[in-house]
Amino acid sequence: MSTKISFASDYMEGAHPAILSRLLETNLLHTPGYGTDEICESAREKIRAACRAPRAAVHFLVGGTQTNATVIDALLRPWQGVVAAESGHISTHEAGAIEFGGHKVLTLPHALGKITAADVRARCEDHWGDGNRDHMVEPGMVYISHPTEYGALYAKGELTELHQVCRDYGIPLYLDGARLAYALACPENDVTLADLAALCDVFYIGGTKCGALLGEAVVAADPDRLPRFFTIMKQHGALLAKGRVLGIQFDALFTDGLYGRIGKPALEAADAIRALCDKAGCPPCFHTPTNQVFVRVEDRVLAPLADRVEFSFWEKADETHTILRFASSWATRMEDVEKLGQVLRDVL
Amino acid sequence: MSTKISFASDYMEGAHPAILSRLLETNLLHTPGYGTDEICESAREKIRAACRAPRAAVHFLVGGTQTNATVIDALLRPWQGVVAAESGHISTHEAGAIEFGGHKVLTLPHALGKITAADVRARCEDHWGDGNRDHMVEPGMVYISHPTEYGALYAKGELTELHQVCRDYGIPLYLDGARLAYALACPENDVTLADLAALCDVFYIGGTKCGALLGEAVVAADPDRLPRFFTIMKQHGALLAKGRVLGIQFDALFTDGLYGRIGKPALEAADAIRALCDKAGCPPCFHTPTNQVFVRVEDRVLAPLADRVEFSFWEKADETHTILRFASSWATRMEDVEKLGQVLRDVL
Amino acid sequence: MSTKISFASDYMEGAHPAILSRLLETNLLHTPGYGTDEICESAREKIRAACRAPRAAVHFLVGGTQTNATVIDALLRPWQGVVAAESGHISTHEAGAIEFGGHKVLTLPHALGKITAADVRARCEDHWGDGNRDHMVEPGMVYISHPTEYGALYAKGELTELHQVCRDYGIPLYLDGARLAYALACPENDVTLADLAALCDVFYIGGTKCGALLGEAVVAADPDRLPRFFTIMKQHGALLAKGRVLGIQFDALFTDGLYGRIGKPALEAADAIRALCDKAGCPPCFHTPTNQVFVRVEDRVLAPLADRVEFSFWEKADETHTILRFASSWATRMEDVEKLGQVLRDVL
Amino acid sequence: MSTKISFASDYMEGAHPAILSRLLETNLLHTPGYGTDEICESAREKIRAACRAPRAAVHFLVGGTQTNATVIDALLRPWQGVVAAESGHISTHEAGAIEFGGHKVLTLPHALGKITAADVRARCEDHWGDGNRDHMVEPGMVYISHPTEYGALYAKGELTELHQVCRDYGIPLYLDGARLAYALACPENDVTLADLAALCDVFYIGGTKCGALLGEAVVAADPDRLPRFFTIMKQHGALLAKGRVLGIQFDALFTDGLYGRIGKPALEAADAIRALCDKAGCPPCFHTPTNQVFVRVEDRVLAPLADRVEFSFWEKADETHTILRFASSWATRMEDVEKLGQVLRDVL
Repeated sequence: MSTKISFASDYMEGAHPAILSRLLETNLLHTPGYGTDEICESAREKIRAACRAPRAAVHFLVGGTQTNATVIDALLRPWQGVVAAESGHISTHEAGAIEFGGHKVLTLPHALGKITAADVRARCEDHWGDGNRDHMVEPGMVYISHPTEYGALYAKGELTELHQVCRDYGIPLYLDGARLAYALACPENDVTLADLAALCDVFYIGGTKCGALLGEAVVAADPDRLPRFFTIMKQHGALLAKGRVLGIQFDALFTDGLYGRIGKPALEAADAIRALCDKAGCPPCFHTPTNQVFVRVEDRVLAPLADRVEFSFWEKADETHTILRFASSWATRMEDVEKLGQVLRDVL
Repeated sequence: MSTKISFASDYMEGAHPAILSRLLETNLLHTPGYGTDEICESAREKIRAACRAPRAAVHFLVGGTQTNATVIDALLRPWQGVVAAESGHISTHEAGAIEFGGHKVLTLPHALGKITAADVRARCEDHWGDGNRDHMVEPGMVYISHPTEYGALYAKGELTELHQVCRDYGIPLYLDGARLAYALACPENDVTLADLAALCDVFYIGGTKCGALLGEAVVAADPDRLPRFFTIMKQHGALLAKGRVLGIQFDALFTDGLYGRIGKPALEAADAIRALCDKAGCPPCFHTPTNQVFVRVEDRVLAPLADRVEFSFWEKADETHTILRFASSWATRMEDVEKLGQVLRDVL
Repeated sequence: MSTKISFASDYMEGAHPAILSRLLETNLLHTPGYGTDEICESAREKIRAACRAPRAAVHFLVGGTQTNATVIDALLRPWQGVVAAESGHISTHEAGAIEFGGHKVLTLPHALGKITAADVRARCEDHWGDGNRDHMVEPGMVYISHPTEYGALYAKGELTELHQVCRDYGIPLYLDGARLAYALACPENDVTLADLAALCDVFYIGGTKCGALLGEAVVAADPDRLPRFFTIMKQHGALLAKGRVLGIQFDALFTDGLYGRIGKPALEAADAIRALCDKAGCPPCFHTPTNQVFVRVEDRVLAPLADRVEFSFWEKADETHTILRFASSWATRMEDVEKLGQVLRDVL
Repeated sequence: MSTKISFASDYMEGAHPAILSRLLETNLLHTPGYGTDEICESAREKIRAACRAPRAAVHFLVGGTQTNATVIDALLRPWQGVVAAESGHISTHEAGAIEFGGHKVLTLPHALGKITAADVRARCEDHWGDGNRDHMVEPGMVYISHPTEYGALYAKGELTELHQVCRDYGIPLYLDGARLAYALACPENDVTLADLAALCDVFYIGGTKCGALLGEAVVAADPDRLPRFFTIMKQHGALLAKGRVLGIQFDALFTDGLYGRIGKPALEAADAIRALCDKAGCPPCFHTPTNQVFVRVEDRVLAPLADRVEFSFWEKADETHTILRFASSWATRMEDVEKLGQVLRDVL
């Protein structure tokens, strides 16, 4: 409940008003549990329509790490691992949730969080060409995020290539869309929900960071891709008794195309912040187009900045410099961006 | 969104109005993530006060199975299992979540879901007296639920005995309070939150079934009981980015003693249902005092009943009879109970 | 290196002389590792022939618990558990190895360690007929042992019925043959290796308790039943670098039908011990025909017995009686049986 | 049973004659199971003496991957991972056995398989200095191998530094000694068994690759370092019923200092092979002093070489070159080395 302006992350506020309204309206309805209710079914239908995937299985889970761990456990056999960027969320910031499920993360180098089809192909070729492969963890699926942890976007052509290499090796492609709304609303993005449904075996549509109180929607265009997923969710503690809490939110987010435009204010804010940084003599250091702005600053300005604005530490750049992150969200107000501009002018 | 009267379970409605109000009020506040915000801290303080456990660790998780799996994994060492009733939720209806974490459930016989200190002691004595014990799973903790899955309550004396046998064997006692509000508001209950904090090493205060949209509050009077629990939660996919969604709800539930009285309408409704069943010639078959009413009916009445009221199938009693369950909740209305009375009179 | 006569178990001695000879003969040969050598292949061919299963996959592992855990992990999907007798080795004496792999053991009542096809069928019917089945662990395979832990044998008809119920539910039948040689050599046994290969999806031929230094041979008549089993073995730490150590032993055991007759001296010794117990006024208490003899004695005779003979404690029978076990082996000498007779006459 | 000369690995032959003799001598003795016999105890005493660690816990396991997985699971808490070289056996060639146990391998860069205390310190500092550390896997122990997978040796000073950084962060140091005999017999080695016992919390003395049929001896100078290790072994399928099979072998290896000198012929052979390679115009490419010789050859010579000698493929060096490995063992004969010299002269 800070009174400082806040660009710490995109999960600092509650939910989009349309979601709260729906929670209020439906509050005293009686519905069956575990996501088997009509509101969840309505949300599923809207998501299937938006993804042009009429047969898709759509499952609602609670958070990103939970979703990644549950989907990956469902897609892999015991002797397989998941190929991911070294910077991938599952490689770094999930406290070993993938390994807790018994699987190795097989890392690849990345550019702003993106991996290439060529690197995936080389990894698979190396594995299958290695005489010791039966003593090694088999690459069993590919994990990517869109936008990446650095805010970068895959072009549709890149996704198509990743899709192809996965087809060639018979392994599924899974996309983490924790911040997907910030891709969909971005002018530089050429990947639609329908493209994701066509090119990824499984992907999830992020709610928590994109206007919901909580919740992520897993989509598999081919419903046979995730057998017994309900039970696997239960086993992972990912099944909500009041499943409708998630259905209501996604139903609101997919009514009248809200999800497609909810990221827009965040992107405008981020562009404005990038311009402000530039003007303050501190040009953004990773050139990515979504709702995260990274700047490299001298360590001596960290304390004065932190007095007036909330941001995230990203990483040490060198002995005397740090890279920090300003993140905007669907709820960011332009007046706060302007205040940030003043702070940057004063401090940098 | 059924138009039938519904006694299917206690998670069929949304949240108590006080919770929705707080969600609305706080919606656009900026707070830090992962439960580190001031609202969560306020909720923790209120829970500590209610439990008379000023040093207690209080953690907010999302659902019951998740909470059980995460706490049990945190309390056990790899070579240990959890002692529980054969009818315990972890023994039957968690899809193997405990085994997924690598632990065996060591079952004991039960009476209406309750286990006895004497049986726990005998189980431990058997283990430690067995020459093959090093080839066997060591009883490493005890799991109980209050109310039990059958709606029964432990008396304070029984809990004290369970506490003692756990002390004697140096193993923690853990209590699943998914429906705890329905115990606290029950005249037959003599166990307070402070008693739970004193007698159980860890317990959880159920939110999902007791008026919240979702959420369970884990309490350990001794904060050292659950080292690195934050990270263990993350690893289990049990850490919410917008942790405040849980804090807000428990803050509301522990303001002005709401949690202590929220179960009352459910208990009155359940008592009324018991009387109605009795009058309809179908006396309740398990004599438990909380919000679940079990009746044994002829199979031929199931279909006509199901046409007019939602209930749960509990178990087959014999070739021609079934035990079914009516559950009330904090949101049950007396007019629906009266309608149920009419249905029972018509059908039974 | 006790000088007492020993009937403590069937793994108290080293290996059959034919095995030691083969170890000596082959000692300085160079062979490739991990069971890919010609001796292992020869042993596999002999086992395939003995089982009349020309396409069978045959894998050599080290010990019983390891074999059970590895095979069960290979046969089950994550949401499944293994159906077994309450007295089954995996249920009691494997220190939670099955749960370590993430799977629940779903126990059935037993008669002398045996389960019935009817009970398996009822268990499966209950599961699939339960409205809550998606919240429960699915019965995914059946585990039996032959002889059982009590020394009992399945009749071929009983195995056929178990095979049939497994077919009906589409789940594999797995047989633990830790003491299989003592079944094969028993006049009451009507189950051949070829029957096992035909009726069980997977079974293992016990080496450790049947004349080898160590080793168990897993057989799956359909080699596609255990995909990637080599890698799963590696992951379980069950793959020997010098795999030939196991191949040599099974090659010796399956040369000239040795495995089929190696149990004979043990059975003759056990029959003689049964007669001696009877004569000493202490008739065997479980009526099973293989190499384990159980007798119920007064507790006061335990110490004098233990002074002169090694045996196993089995279980307390009542306040003043204990059931103990005398086990014979392929290496038991009749002169030791006679000495045991004298001890029984003196002490009982 | 190849008739080619073989330098494929160090586990291509059987056991040292002293071991076979002891197996024969003891074959018909009756001993209790699971390593509780007198021969195992004798072996333990000899190992304690050789390590100058009179209180040490000594456990006998079967193979390297099994030993690593079991020890690492015993040393780590659930939220921790193991720090290891990218080239470490646990990082690459154990089919995910560490992840199967729920733990992440946290990799560091290496030089010929060695990691430095400075890199370990930096890794720990990074972790504990990271604001997101509670979302990350905590470095919970350090794994090294001696010799490394490349045949390199740690100097005593380097080990002492690693020991110190582990002390500073309160985490155990574990050393994989699969090929330890080839270090101990190496003139360049300055690390004794007593040093290992003093500097490593746990280490294992390799048997399989050092003259035994199979078996590894885990040593923890402080026996409290591995609580309930017997049960953990059982749970991992690592407990042999006829435990004496391992005890006999280590008793022989530690009688009259055999283990200290058993590697000598291998080292002489390796030195001779290095000289032969050099003379043949193909100098060894990794400069390590133990029983593995690596050479970089043109791809066109692979087939003619493979016709006359068994070796291992190590890795592709570039488009037209390959690195291959010749490994010698305790059983390598100088006449085979001479034959190899002729092959190299003919082919290279």
